Amino acid sequence: MTADICLDVALVHYPVVNRNNERISSAVTNLDLHDIARAGRTFGVGTYWIVTPDVQQQELAAQITGHWTTGYGGTVNPDRANALSLVRICTDLEEVIVGMRVRDGQKPLVVATSADPQARHIAYPALQKTIYQGTPVLLLFGTAWGLAPEVMDKVDQVLPPINGPGEFNHLSVRSAASIVLDRLLGRREQDV
Amino acid sequence: MTADICLDVALVHYPVVNRNNERISSAVTNLDLHDIARAGRTFGVGTYWIVTPDVQQQELAAQITGHWTTGYGGTVNPDRANALSLVRICTDLEEVIVGMRVRDGQKPLVVATSADPQARHIAYPALQKTIYQGTPVLLLFGTAWGLAPEVMDKVDQVLPPINGPGEFNHLSVRSAASIVLDRLLGRREQDV
Repeated sequence: MTADICLDVALVHYPVVNRNNERISSAVTNLDLHDIARAGRTFGVGTYWIVTPDVQQQELAAQITGHWTTGYGGTVNPDRANALSLVRICTDLEEVIVGMRVRDGQKPLVVATSADPQARHIAYPALQKTIYQGTPVLLLFGTAWGLAPEVMDKVDQVLPPINGPGEFNHLSVRSAASIVLDRLLGRREQDV
Repeated sequence: MTADICLDVALVHYPVVNRNNERISSAVTNLDLHDIARAGRTFGVGTYWIVTPDVQQQELAAQITGHWTTGYGGTVNPDRANALSLVRICTDLEEVIVGMRVRDGQKPLVVATSADPQARHIAYPALQKTIYQGTPVLLLFGTAWGLAPEVMDKVDQVLPPINGPGEFNHLSVRSAASIVLDRLLGRREQDV
């Protein structure tokens, strides 16, 4: 089933906004790499792109990933090596889209996520159908307080915010990515 | 809607097993506290129990939680204070169950989670129905390589493992808890 889908995830560190809605570049964190790589491998993601223009942050991401893939970490925990082998580090979203176009032969459908309701959105079942039809899809997740407006303006679609029974929806990006992937690609046959 | 449900989450640090299936006590980690508290608040959890018999680990958990509730962290980030105010630190699962019984007037249904298939399980829709009927439910998540067998033997029900299209299912406990809560309590009306 995984061979038929073509879904990548990008974790964006720039351009994102802070709590005051100012444009910032956020820091790479160890557990964003691990948790989203593990969820990505679970749900059949092709590549997990770490997007940051900061060369030192790129080196940090490469060091962490290398430890768990080609380094000592991978020898003691092959499952972690398997997950983190999904990671590819790049400078900006243009590089991600070019990389996907080269690999897949077409430009991906770029779908943003946001904790705030947007004017337009694509429903989860509709995006799920698109993915299973074989359309290459790139899911964007913003670190810090979310993707900057110039990113949101350029994407093809936006997924609805993740809400529970109440109004609080301040999930970590690790939780949000895990939930979105499960909604799109989680197996439910045990519940039928 | 949240007033009608009575769902608690316990993150168990002992007894759990390591990769060699040996019984261990795991360390409290900062992001387990934050991520699961934020998901808990999003999905209407009543109390997020941190279970560890180690007094120093209890103190560490209390220090972190205090910083974000009554301390400086909460003044700069009230949403985080709101989430982390769900946390209650305790010694063992008996203390959790007694606490819930005192609060709710009845013993909770204790439901474990596991990455491994179990002989018996309760389907997500069935547990969802139980929760919305007002039955107090305690969801257990194990740190490290999962809940020890003596815990699994005593629970009332077990949820099925979270699977994607393939066989890999090594999610972080932060991801697993987020996904389970979303499956049980996530709002889907935007998709109708």
